[in-house]
Amino acid sequence: MDKIYVNKLSNYIDSEISFSGFVDTIRDKKWVQFVILRDSTGKVQMTIEKSDENNAKLVEIVSNLTKDSVIKVKGKLVKNDAVKLGGMEIIPSSIEVLSKAEELPFDYNNLDGVNIDTRLDYRWLDLRNEKNMLARQVESCMVEGMREYLYSCDFTEIHTPKLIKTASESGSSVFKVDYFGGDAYLAQSPQFYKQMCMAAGMSKVFEVAPAFRAENSNTNRHATEFTSFDIEMSYIDSYEDVMDFEEDLLIAGLTKVKERYGDKIKELFGKEVIVPTKPFPKIRLEDLCKIFKEKYHYDVPEHDIGDMNADMEHMTYEYAMEKYNSEFMFITDFSKTKRPFYHMRKNDVPQGYDLIWRGMEITSGSQREHRYDELLKNAKEKGLGKDVEFYMEFFKYGCPPHGGFGLGVDRLTMLLLGLNSIKETQLLFRGPNRLTP
Amino acid sequence: MDKIYVNKLSNYIDSEISFSGFVDTIRDKKWVQFVILRDSTGKVQMTIEKSDENNAKLVEIVSNLTKDSVIKVKGKLVKNDAVKLGGMEIIPSSIEVLSKAEELPFDYNNLDGVNIDTRLDYRWLDLRNEKNMLARQVESCMVEGMREYLYSCDFTEIHTPKLIKTASESGSSVFKVDYFGGDAYLAQSPQFYKQMCMAAGMSKVFEVAPAFRAENSNTNRHATEFTSFDIEMSYIDSYEDVMDFEEDLLIAGLTKVKERYGDKIKELFGKEVIVPTKPFPKIRLEDLCKIFKEKYHYDVPEHDIGDMNADMEHMTYEYAMEKYNSEFMFITDFSKTKRPFYHMRKNDVPQGYDLIWRGMEITSGSQREHRYDELLKNAKEKGLGKDVEFYMEFFKYGCPPHGGFGLGVDRLTMLLLGLNSIKETQLLFRGPNRLTP
Repeated sequence: MDKIYVNKLSNYIDSEISFSGFVDTIRDKKWVQFVILRDSTGKVQMTIEKSDENNAKLVEIVSNLTKDSVIKVKGKLVKNDAVKLGGMEIIPSSIEVLSKAEELPFDYNNLDGVNIDTRLDYRWLDLRNEKNMLARQVESCMVEGMREYLYSCDFTEIHTPKLIKTASESGSSVFKVDYFGGDAYLAQSPQFYKQMCMAAGMSKVFEVAPAFRAENSNTNRHATEFTSFDIEMSYIDSYEDVMDFEEDLLIAGLTKVKERYGDKIKELFGKEVIVPTKPFPKIRLEDLCKIFKEKYHYDVPEHDIGDMNADMEHMTYEYAMEKYNSEFMFITDFSKTKRPFYHMRKNDVPQGYDLIWRGMEITSGSQREHRYDELLKNAKEKGLGKDVEFYMEFFKYGCPPHGGFGLGVDRLTMLLLGLNSIKETQLLFRGPNRLTP
Repeated sequence: MDKIYVNKLSNYIDSEISFSGFVDTIRDKKWVQFVILRDSTGKVQMTIEKSDENNAKLVEIVSNLTKDSVIKVKGKLVKNDAVKLGGMEIIPSSIEVLSKAEELPFDYNNLDGVNIDTRLDYRWLDLRNEKNMLARQVESCMVEGMREYLYSCDFTEIHTPKLIKTASESGSSVFKVDYFGGDAYLAQSPQFYKQMCMAAGMSKVFEVAPAFRAENSNTNRHATEFTSFDIEMSYIDSYEDVMDFEEDLLIAGLTKVKERYGDKIKELFGKEVIVPTKPFPKIRLEDLCKIFKEKYHYDVPEHDIGDMNADMEHMTYEYAMEKYNSEFMFITDFSKTKRPFYHMRKNDVPQGYDLIWRGMEITSGSQREHRYDELLKNAKEKGLGKDVEFYMEFFKYGCPPHGGFGLGVDRLTMLLLGLNSIKETQLLFRGPNRLTP
C-alpha cells in the first residue's frame, strides 16, 4: 500500500508518485485540464497541458471523468507557486479510473436547500461535505482524549451485554427482542453492569457502547440508538468526587479537540472550542429555580417540579455564562421522586447531579447506593420488584461505595460543533421512522 | 476522594492514612488479629494487637467482620520486614464497615469444583478470582494497545448502528427486534457500514462494539453477543496490504500486553505472551489441505471443501509451529462459494484470508469489491436481492478500493490466556440459555 495522503505530499516534491483520490472538481479549459483530487486529509491539483501530444490519452480520460469518481494517478509532483492548493501540482503520466461515479443526487458542498431525509438517505454522500467529515474526526478525537485520560487513571475498559433478560432500570421504554422464542430486551444503559463490576472489585471501569431507547419521540436531540460513554468508580467519598472527576475528563477531551481541530472547527463551524477550568459552577436545583423566577419570571411547571426541563436547561446556560462566564454548570439536589432508586440519598436528597453544557443536559451522575438494605428500601418505594432482583444481589457480598455518570457522545459532538440536530450528528441516525441506510 | 491503592502504598510509609478495600482474609489469633485487605491492585495487611487496651473496639469490630466485606481503615502505615505483603502493615486507629458481606456461595479462590453456571450466576464473585480479574485487565490492555496503534495511523473511530432494517450480510441468523410495531434486526457486524464510510471518503475507520448472532449453538467459542474489533481502510492495492496491516496491529496489542502483564500472565495462567514477528507465514488453502493429507492423513469432509473447520484450525496451528515456529498463520484462496459476495475476486478466487492463532480462527479479512457491476454480479450469484439493495447504493457514486477485517475481542482474550471457554472469558457471557445476570 503506497497511498500518499495529501497532508504528506509536500515531502514528495519533484518525485514520481502514485496518488489515489476522489475527483473533487474538473475544469476543462481550452488549453489545459485542471482536476482537483481529494482524500480525507485535503486536496491537490492535477494539471494536464492539452498542447502536449503525449497527453492525448490523458486528456481523453479526463474528458470522460465524472465528479466524485475515484482515480489513481501516476506522475510527477512539482512545485508551482501559482497553485493555491499547497503550491504544488501533479503532472500525470497515467490515470486509472478505479470507480466511476454516477451523477450525484445533490451537491454535498451546498446542503442548505437539501431535505434532511434526502441527506440521511444518502448519508455517505452527505458525509463528503467538509463539515460533516470534520464532525466525524472531532467526535473520534474527543473520545480518544477522554479514553486516554481514563487509561492514565488506571481505568479498565469493559464491554457489557446489550441483550438483557429484564426490562432495565430507568423506566424508559425498552426494545423487545425475539430470543430463540423467548423475550430479551436491549439495554438502555450499562448502569447495572458497571455497578456489578464495582461489586466485583474492579474499582474503575468505563465503556463506550451503543444504548437503546424505545421512545417514540421526534425531537432534535433524541435517537433510539446512541453512543453512551459510561464511567463507574469505587471508593468515592461523595458524589462531589464524581463531579470533580467528570470535570477532569471533559477537560482532557476538549483539550485534545482544541489542540488538533480548534482552528478548523472555528473556520468551518464558527465555533470556539473552550476548554473549561475547574471547578465548574454548581448550584442546588431549588436555588436555581429561585433565580429563574427572579430573573426570567419563570415558574416551573407542576410536573417538572424537582426536576429540569429543556427550557430550564437553556436558562441555566444563560445564567452560568452571565454569572460565571462558564459554559458548564452542575445542578444538584433533585427531588428523589425524579431520580432513579439506585442514587444514594442523604436526608432524603439524591446524591447526584446533572451537568448542563451550552443549554443541554449532557450527563446524569451520582453516588450509588451500595448498602443492600437502603437500596431495597429505595427500590420498594419506587415500586420495583422482580426486574431489579438480579441487580440487588450484587450488593449482598460486599461492595465498595461507588459512583459514576454517563455521557452521550453524539450530544457532546452536536453541542461542540453547534449542530442543529442529532440527525445530522450521528454517523447514521436512528429514530422511530429511520432505520436506514 | 483520597483512596490510596495498594500499589501506591509504599509512598506512605510512616504516614497516617485512610485505606478502603475488601476483607480478603481474617486470622484471629490469641494475641493478635491479622486482616488482609484487598483492592484491584493488590493486598495489604492490617494488624491489631489484642493486648493493647485501646484496641478493644477494633478487636470487636474485627471479631464480627465477614470475609469480602468492605471496610475503611484509618491508621498508620508502618514498615515491617516480617510481613510478606510488601514488608508493611497498617496499624489501625479506626475501622468502619462500609458494606457487610453475607457468606459467599462458593470460594472464588478455588473454582475447580464450581459449576460454570454457578460461576456465571454469581459472575461478580467469580470475577474476584485473581485470574479472572487479570483477564479483564488484559483484555482492556490489548484493546488499548490496538487502538493506540490505529490512532497513530490516523484512523477515525466510528459508532455504527446496531439496529438495522434488513437481516444483514453474512447469512448467519439475526435477532429480530420489535421496532414500534414493525421489525428491525440486530447487526451481526458493522461490515456494510464501515464500507459505507469508505464510500464517504473517510479512508480509515475502526469500531469496537457489540455484534449479535442468533445461532442456537452451545460450543466453547460461540456467544450470541460478542465484542467485535473492526477495521476498514481505503486505497489498498490488494488484500496483502490488509494482512500486512493486521500483523502490525496484533503486534502492537500483544507488545502492550506483554510489557504490562507478561509476567503476571506467566505466573497466573502459565502462558507466555509471544509477540510475533513479521511477516506471519501464509499458505493457500489448497496447499494446506495437501499438507494435512500427507502429514496427518486427513481428508477434508465434503461439506468443508474450499473452507476451514475446527479440526483444520488445530492442525494449522500444529503445522505453523512445527514448520515456522509461528503461533499465527494466514490462509488464503478460499472457495468463492464459502466467502461472502462482497469479497473481491480475481480469476474467481476471493481476495481474502483467515488468520489462525493458537488453533483458532481469529479473523476473516479481505479486499472488498468496490466496483458496482462486479458487486452486483457477485450478489446475484449468491441469490441476494432486496436485502443488499441499500448496500449496493454505496458504490454508485465513487468509492475507493478498500479492505478490512474483524477480530473477536473475546476470542483474542481467551486464546491469549489459554482459557477453556468463551463463557469464562466474556465479562458477562450471552448464549442461547444465558441472558443473566
